[in-house]
Amino acid sequence: MIRLGILGYGNLGRGIEWAVKHNPDMELVAVFTRRDPATVKINSAAKVYSSAELDKHTDEIDVLILCGGSATDLPTQTPEAVKYYNVVDSFDTHAKVPEHFANVDAAAKAAGKIGFISVGWDPGMFSLARLYSNVILPTGSDYTFWGKGVSQGHSDAIRRIKGVKDARQYTVPVEAALEQVRSGSNPELTTRQKHTRLCYVVAEEGADLAAIENEIKTMPNYFSDYDTTVNFISEEELKRDHAGLPHGGFVIRTGKTGGDNQFNNTIEYSLKLDSNPAFTSQVLVAFARAAYRMNKEGMTGCKTVFDVPPIMLANMEPDYVRAHLL
Amino acid sequence: MIRLGILGYGNLGRGIEWAVKHNPDMELVAVFTRRDPATVKINSAAKVYSSAELDKHTDEIDVLILCGGSATDLPTQTPEAVKYYNVVDSFDTHAKVPEHFANVDAAAKAAGKIGFISVGWDPGMFSLARLYSNVILPTGSDYTFWGKGVSQGHSDAIRRIKGVKDARQYTVPVEAALEQVRSGSNPELTTRQKHTRLCYVVAEEGADLAAIENEIKTMPNYFSDYDTTVNFISEEELKRDHAGLPHGGFVIRTGKTGGDNQFNNTIEYSLKLDSNPAFTSQVLVAFARAAYRMNKEGMTGCKTVFDVPPIMLANMEPDYVRAHLL
Repeated sequence: MIRLGILGYGNLGRGIEWAVKHNPDMELVAVFTRRDPATVKINSAAKVYSSAELDKHTDEIDVLILCGGSATDLPTQTPEAVKYYNVVDSFDTHAKVPEHFANVDAAAKAAGKIGFISVGWDPGMFSLARLYSNVILPTGSDYTFWGKGVSQGHSDAIRRIKGVKDARQYTVPVEAALEQVRSGSNPELTTRQKHTRLCYVVAEEGADLAAIENEIKTMPNYFSDYDTTVNFISEEELKRDHAGLPHGGFVIRTGKTGGDNQFNNTIEYSLKLDSNPAFTSQVLVAFARAAYRMNKEGMTGCKTVFDVPPIMLANMEPDYVRAHLL
Repeated sequence: MIRLGILGYGNLGRGIEWAVKHNPDMELVAVFTRRDPATVKINSAAKVYSSAELDKHTDEIDVLILCGGSATDLPTQTPEAVKYYNVVDSFDTHAKVPEHFANVDAAAKAAGKIGFISVGWDPGMFSLARLYSNVILPTGSDYTFWGKGVSQGHSDAIRRIKGVKDARQYTVPVEAALEQVRSGSNPELTTRQKHTRLCYVVAEEGADLAAIENEIKTMPNYFSDYDTTVNFISEEELKRDHAGLPHGGFVIRTGKTGGDNQFNNTIEYSLKLDSNPAFTSQVLVAFARAAYRMNKEGMTGCKTVFDVPPIMLANMEPDYVRAHLL
């Protein structure tokens, strides 16, 4: 049994509890929290510890999965935690990956541990799709579309607007753009042409709906570059119809083969997920398995999804995998 | 530069010549043929040698790509060639993979070489799609669809019928079955429900067309379990409209996540290829790169696509890949 710990008990932490049920070679033994452990009610038999005693349970845990956020938690948590444990995080600030990698790599090597960063579906499975397709089709173009799915960051941005009680924002890929890409016509697409944004907003009583709608649609970075639709709904409707966290997307590479680039090719990888955190957690535990095995083999340092032979992710014997999945 | 050799100069051999043009870190230096080398005209500056002198050029070649067939060539060629070279083959007889693996593994370990088997798109990229999706969604079902594309084996089977001058057979996935699978309804599909077979046949003058059509449609293993359409066309039409070797397909896994299997997920990987041999060759050379690197690192034995960290396939620096593709 691989003994997992988690640091942070939110959507992703609960997702890890679920994912362990699908992976019989794993057990969740510890949950570290910044809250008072006595107040944190979890859905498994794991022990709940204060994050202040992160360094005290190294004999109990094989791999620690970091369930914090990329903006402020992981840049400090991952290099710190990897001093004591093999770790896996889902760091997703693409622009800061080189810096985060360097920090985790130094700490992991000093401690003799494995530190996986940027594991999940994007970055993660989508990154793998991009790398494999770039390798196979060096002459080509990459396209990534997200959705239809809930963007937590965009939903939060709407909630901060005066007069908004609650909100849910869906990122929606433009079907016509997808078809254009798949056709191999190699289009140059603007931000607006690739995705639309669909918002469901619960306004406070007496709020100025037109002002809210205008503030959403003109919000820089988040909405102003997109065709945005705002629907005002009741709190009941939001709870009934928009409680989930579905997501997904498409990674497409189109490219040329042949001595004179005479052949077109399209490689497409797509995900359709009822629950973003539940799926992300499944990816995290699979790479936790690899972290455990790689460290057992003597490897140390920072790793990404690019560094693992896929067989090391599997709770299956190599003979079986070759006979049944090759 | 990685110096490649190939054994066998047919569609796949010509494909390797093309693929090298897309991979500036590689050069094709030698072509081994069972024919008289003087009679083999190739499209590159490589030297042409008799396959009888396979053991004579070990200093010239880093990786040898085997371009023979799985039925009779590769089972003996790969274990023999790996005595002298790191090799890559595209062995695709799924049922005989364990035996082939064992033979190549023993020979490769004895020689201190790497022997990749079953590299291409199925087995190959489709196998990777199956493994990753099984790892991430252990609770689920696999579906593989092929086409629309030309099946060389089925085309050959038609050509062997009395009165047939030439033929081309397309395997076509049934769109309704694909949609049923994507919906997550987890259907049990028969052979007939998954694919249809579309045949273009050039008959000899005066041949009994009804008899040919009946013989095709009732041919066991190849056609009798499928809904098959037979179109008789002229030789000119066949050459004009059906000269290419397009192919492709879909690997789909649907599965459950959540503590009570309450969430549905669909992972889909698909390929659409104008030229099957040109694309297969691109995959072969990428794994040739990995074979070269793995052997340089001291690894030996038989390997499959499951055994390679994806970064080892890339003609890109790890820093670059992390910054741009993660």
